[in-house]
Amino acid sequence: MSMYFEDLQIGQKASLGKTITEADILLFSAVSMDTNPLHLHEEHGRSSIFGERIAHGMLSAGLISAVLGTRLPGEGAIYLSQTLRFRAPVKIGDTVTATAEVMELNPAKKRATFRTTCTVAGNLVVDGEAVVQVPSRP
Amino acid sequence: MSMYFEDLQIGQKASLGKTITEADILLFSAVSMDTNPLHLHEEHGRSSIFGERIAHGMLSAGLISAVLGTRLPGEGAIYLSQTLRFRAPVKIGDTVTATAEVMELNPAKKRATFRTTCTVAGNLVVDGEAVVQVPSRP
Amino acid sequence: MSMYFEDLQIGQKASLGKTITEADILLFSAVSMDTNPLHLHEEHGRSSIFGERIAHGMLSAGLISAVLGTRLPGEGAIYLSQTLRFRAPVKIGDTVTATAEVMELNPAKKRATFRTTCTVAGNLVVDGEAVVQVPSRP
Amino acid sequence: MSMYFEDLQIGQKASLGKTITEADILLFSAVSMDTNPLHLHEEHGRSSIFGERIAHGMLSAGLISAVLGTRLPGEGAIYLSQTLRFRAPVKIGDTVTATAEVMELNPAKKRATFRTTCTVAGNLVVDGEAVVQVPSRP
Repeated sequence: MSMYFEDLQIGQKASLGKTITEADILLFSAVSMDTNPLHLHEEHGRSSIFGERIAHGMLSAGLISAVLGTRLPGEGAIYLSQTLRFRAPVKIGDTVTATAEVMELNPAKKRATFRTTCTVAGNLVVDGEAVVQVPSRP
Repeated sequence: MSMYFEDLQIGQKASLGKTITEADILLFSAVSMDTNPLHLHEEHGRSSIFGERIAHGMLSAGLISAVLGTRLPGEGAIYLSQTLRFRAPVKIGDTVTATAEVMELNPAKKRATFRTTCTVAGNLVVDGEAVVQVPSRP
Repeated sequence: MSMYFEDLQIGQKASLGKTITEADILLFSAVSMDTNPLHLHEEHGRSSIFGERIAHGMLSAGLISAVLGTRLPGEGAIYLSQTLRFRAPVKIGDTVTATAEVMELNPAKKRATFRTTCTVAGNLVVDGEAVVQVPSRP
Repeated sequence: MSMYFEDLQIGQKASLGKTITEADILLFSAVSMDTNPLHLHEEHGRSSIFGERIAHGMLSAGLISAVLGTRLPGEGAIYLSQTLRFRAPVKIGDTVTATAEVMELNPAKKRATFRTTCTVAGNLVVDGEAVVQVPSRP
């Protein structure tokens, strides 16, 4: 799926979600080189303030990239910037829903600003904004 | 490696790097669900403005998370926020270096602000700032 | 992190650990082609002398390689040899700690011999020795 | 496939091989936490004595574990010990053949000693010995 700048409207939303598994954490650590024991070492996780291993915050951010790149606006969009506030941990077995909502449209530059959130069971875990360059209808 | 808030000084820096391979892109797409053909479909990449497939921007952001979580300040730090500006594409075979540099220290809250960059052959590909909660020396 | 031969002293130690998950076992079997059902087939594992599936012994050996290659002596070291005695099984969910301790230094050849162990909850699961060529301070 | 102690004879051999890819190296680094840049950072590899990135030595050792665990003697065998001498580097694209050959049989303890080698294009890259406990014919 893919939208043109002209198809976008303020308030439009799309979401996508997945359950975070140990395999996600292991693969993310490989790709990122982020081998922090908070993610990979159960005893370390248990003695942390989170009480157990948690997922990398940037793993949830990857889901935001997925919503923008595959749903709204989808293929053809160019990712310009993203802000991320990590509000709460994501634990193994949590199902994360990433949502993008159109907040602002700049027709001169064909840029769209999205509020981007990740939630687990309705609770905000990541909050932020993305700016995306969107192709114009040919 | 792991540092306490009291060990940090303005201007301190750490880096970490890796070469981005097709396997990285495949695994990142698996973990993030970001199956945008710009990353996975060679013909699509060739006909894009980049002329070839590119890595997910958020994959480079993962390396920033790795510097902060394993080098500076390292284990024990809590990731509070990150801003990311995607300045240039990362292509398969590029070696990305992620660097974090201490910019501001807030002793009251034990928070450190880092300038965070990713470069390829000295050229900026991702720019931004991170705020991290750093444990105090016991 | 990285040390020169001249930085090493008898008795110096470093460790690194992780929790072994089903994903680790799956990926290790993919990389090694070791598809022995003792690792991948739950019913087979249950009817084995171990009473459940176990991790590949060589997976724990990989953690020894990680301590030597990233902590002590770290980058720049050349792995010459390793002996491994598999003393006890590692089960899914076990947290393995790999430790390397300097036992012998050969200044003529710039070689260091390490005692290398893996433990789970303080119990020895792998024991052995490594010999590593260590770069000299320039 | 699986053999009993009584099926083994001095000089018996089995082999198994695979081509080492960037994906193997990435996954092995995830499983082992061995993120040494010699394996993951192309520029670092080029400036090393090897002239390019190389595979983890323990990755080749994993293929030895595969021969023993799936071919000779196969399922049911218990891995007791392994010695490894890393003789030459394995590069991306190399096809590694791991071979195990029966060298000694201890009927009292039902233990078999194997010479275990890895070769690339006929050249020895890993050499060593394995001792395995082999089940007796029921």
